Amino acid sequence: MKEKTNLTMLCDFYELTMGNGYFQTDMSGRICYFDVFFRSVPDKGGFALAAGLNQVIEYIQNLRFDEEDLSYLRSKGCFAEEFLDYLRTFRFTGDIWAVPEGTPIFPNEPIMVVRAPAIQAQFVETFLLLTLNHQCLIATKSNRIVRAAEGRPVAEFGSRRAQGADGALLGARASYIAGCSATACTMADQRYGSPATGTMAHSWVQMFPDEYTAFQTYCRLYPNNATLLVDTYNVLHSGVPNAIRVFKEELLPRGITKCGIRLDSGDLTYLSQKAREMLDEAGLTDCKIIASNALDEYIIRDLVRQGARIDSFGVGERLITSRSEPVFGGVYKLAAVEDENGNIIPKIKISENAAKITTPHFKKVYRIFSKRTGKAEADLICLHDEQIDFNQPLELFDPDATWKRKVFTDIEARELLVPVFRGGDLVYQVPTLQESRDYCQRQVDALWDEVKRFENPHNYYVDLSQKLWDIKHDLLNRHEY
Amino acid sequence: MKEKTNLTMLCDFYELTMGNGYFQTDMSGRICYFDVFFRSVPDKGGFALAAGLNQVIEYIQNLRFDEEDLSYLRSKGCFAEEFLDYLRTFRFTGDIWAVPEGTPIFPNEPIMVVRAPAIQAQFVETFLLLTLNHQCLIATKSNRIVRAAEGRPVAEFGSRRAQGADGALLGARASYIAGCSATACTMADQRYGSPATGTMAHSWVQMFPDEYTAFQTYCRLYPNNATLLVDTYNVLHSGVPNAIRVFKEELLPRGITKCGIRLDSGDLTYLSQKAREMLDEAGLTDCKIIASNALDEYIIRDLVRQGARIDSFGVGERLITSRSEPVFGGVYKLAAVEDENGNIIPKIKISENAAKITTPHFKKVYRIFSKRTGKAEADLICLHDEQIDFNQPLELFDPDATWKRKVFTDIEARELLVPVFRGGDLVYQVPTLQESRDYCQRQVDALWDEVKRFENPHNYYVDLSQKLWDIKHDLLNRHEY
Repeated sequence: MKEKTNLTMLCDFYELTMGNGYFQTDMSGRICYFDVFFRSVPDKGGFALAAGLNQVIEYIQNLRFDEEDLSYLRSKGCFAEEFLDYLRTFRFTGDIWAVPEGTPIFPNEPIMVVRAPAIQAQFVETFLLLTLNHQCLIATKSNRIVRAAEGRPVAEFGSRRAQGADGALLGARASYIAGCSATACTMADQRYGSPATGTMAHSWVQMFPDEYTAFQTYCRLYPNNATLLVDTYNVLHSGVPNAIRVFKEELLPRGITKCGIRLDSGDLTYLSQKAREMLDEAGLTDCKIIASNALDEYIIRDLVRQGARIDSFGVGERLITSRSEPVFGGVYKLAAVEDENGNIIPKIKISENAAKITTPHFKKVYRIFSKRTGKAEADLICLHDEQIDFNQPLELFDPDATWKRKVFTDIEARELLVPVFRGGDLVYQVPTLQESRDYCQRQVDALWDEVKRFENPHNYYVDLSQKLWDIKHDLLNRHEY
Repeated sequence: MKEKTNLTMLCDFYELTMGNGYFQTDMSGRICYFDVFFRSVPDKGGFALAAGLNQVIEYIQNLRFDEEDLSYLRSKGCFAEEFLDYLRTFRFTGDIWAVPEGTPIFPNEPIMVVRAPAIQAQFVETFLLLTLNHQCLIATKSNRIVRAAEGRPVAEFGSRRAQGADGALLGARASYIAGCSATACTMADQRYGSPATGTMAHSWVQMFPDEYTAFQTYCRLYPNNATLLVDTYNVLHSGVPNAIRVFKEELLPRGITKCGIRLDSGDLTYLSQKAREMLDEAGLTDCKIIASNALDEYIIRDLVRQGARIDSFGVGERLITSRSEPVFGGVYKLAAVEDENGNIIPKIKISENAAKITTPHFKKVYRIFSKRTGKAEADLICLHDEQIDFNQPLELFDPDATWKRKVFTDIEARELLVPVFRGGDLVYQVPTLQESRDYCQRQVDALWDEVKRFENPHNYYVDLSQKLWDIKHDLLNRHEY
């Protein structure tokens, strides 16, 4: 593994000015609870996917200021020398709970809870958000694209259009958790184990005197993994005929029938159908057709519906930037503080926008599954220490339209947030990327199809317990407007 | 400076399979010319901005495979041992020309040219594209936002919504080149010198028993830089009155009149006007009003038009991801190869989409300025060794609609592409970030307002010389369809 860049200084400057303020007013040790949550699913989807926890863990473990950082901060002229001294030994000593990577997540429920002294809990805000926002975004988008392909493999091809190196690398990682089968990004394979794949660019074909020679050379070099790019000059008049000729000359005599062609422009339905006919007529029924070129879930769904003869997809810029909705709006909000005696005081943020009002207190989240179908039916947010008897019928109500009530029976409840750090120590058994990918698939399978529609999905229930609802509305009513 | 992660392995896997192929067929030393260019301006704008060159330079200088990389590649089972040996001493030994950071750039003109042995020129494709695509995108978007603010400072606040750490860090860098005045990102200041700024989050206000105490504490800590966030509870009934009270109690007695409030929700026109009245009535005419909350160039333009009393803007997610158009479609295309005698053979890529046909050959680009107005009038792409007498009237023609002709007189021409690497050595005097920012502003000032409209801008001329046009069409005509 390469030397990692320490990302401690990747913070918003206000986290340091506030930190200095807490330090100088003796509030730095005050225990705070912050929630990470988001307010709406990108692309008007029915659910999002959690990803990025492993990078949060690495960040927390590497959190430290070096002398260079401190002298930079000193040069800003606004920090007390005692505060800079304190930063010299700054470490994260708090607790973190989070939903595992690959978990379907819904608006307004905590996907991570940080409990730590004020200065620490505040400091990690920017990095936690940027990491979770980025990877949740790409995982969510990738899963939509993978579902549109209905079982056909989808490879992530977007590095060159990513928003920076981490965009490429960690985007590939998130897309693999969400169900992509491979990536074009070599480093994502080397570092995270999402398998790298790829064959040739147009420039390979252009480098040779003609397309036939380019294909022939490639098949001789890589007879067992020959996918030929057939659109450099003309797909049906040149690319496919040359590919067929070369496959017959170079591969079939060696008993190799596994091969492929890639279409990267033109009408993919028409070209794939024509190419399929030509390949089949030539006896190359095992030759796969791979398609790329500005694909996304909508185009793939249409291609599949129209009977395109495409065996797998390469998806680039619209996946790696989540082009149709490139922002995952996760936020980090104070939910409670502890007083001197360790009593938890719930805190609320009020806003003129009702949607921006927070749910106060230290909370936990249950996902309610039907024992009969195995499907997820609702999430219930309640107080951290609330005891709920899930063997009894459970009545939930909509926190906004409280007259909407529903009773669940024969259910099983699982806690979504699992302990990750306790007192600064990692207590979480970090799964492999493959395990997270498998887990993700099982959890998405446990959602009703209605929640998985691309447009107008069913609104999955995320409800508050009566106790939590009462606390929130009590705090709301105490403020004047 | 922190240890940098070596990004050599951040390549598409096909660059390695092709490299191995060139190596094994004795083509690896063949000199190739690749162009970086883009096909359309994001957001239907009239121009884009170049950014990211410095990160390309760092990447080229650090290009090397270590033993860990080689053993990973060996494990893939598809690379010749001799090729892996060759990679052990792989360095970039070619030439690179590029437009300086901050230069306005237009579709279909080379913004970077790479001349190098095939294997090297091919290898750098992904990283060059991802770096230039990312930073050009953010610089272009940021400049739109800065122009919308009509002189009011714009600070970049988007780290938490960026697509990964580099998205935040290098996005802040690109936004500074393009005219932003500051960033919230501490590391972007430390590493690149784009000034970091910031004051408080809602959590600061929530941490105290009441808003007044929170404001008072902050003003006592930072009397010379007190910008108070006034929307945690209620802007006009609580936030602004508390801010006024604290400014009067804590700042005015010390003779400090410089202070600020920040609005982060609600109707910014209405709230800023009301807040301005209240501040002025209290004698706080020097108090600045800063606004944030999902801003972009369109919202800022409307706020300015409606007479919002906002002195500066903080812009986050819509800048740092270029939300309305998060992909900058730069491509890397083979333009020529040299034969054994060093003759340059132009190469073309043909496509069913006319817009995807490339312009062949080793080229240079002139920007034509009117001597009378100092404004940029057109760009002219010609052969690398073409001699053009700019003292004569210059007739240019539209490369698609060739009957559209225009004669330019009294002009000055400047070459856009400057030498950056020669034989692998850096020959470019890298400007400071501040110099690039100043240069950018001068170059944008040299564009006609018509080119700078947000909607339906004037189509700036990017034309081919007659010689180049002839070569392109000759190659096109040689292919059958």
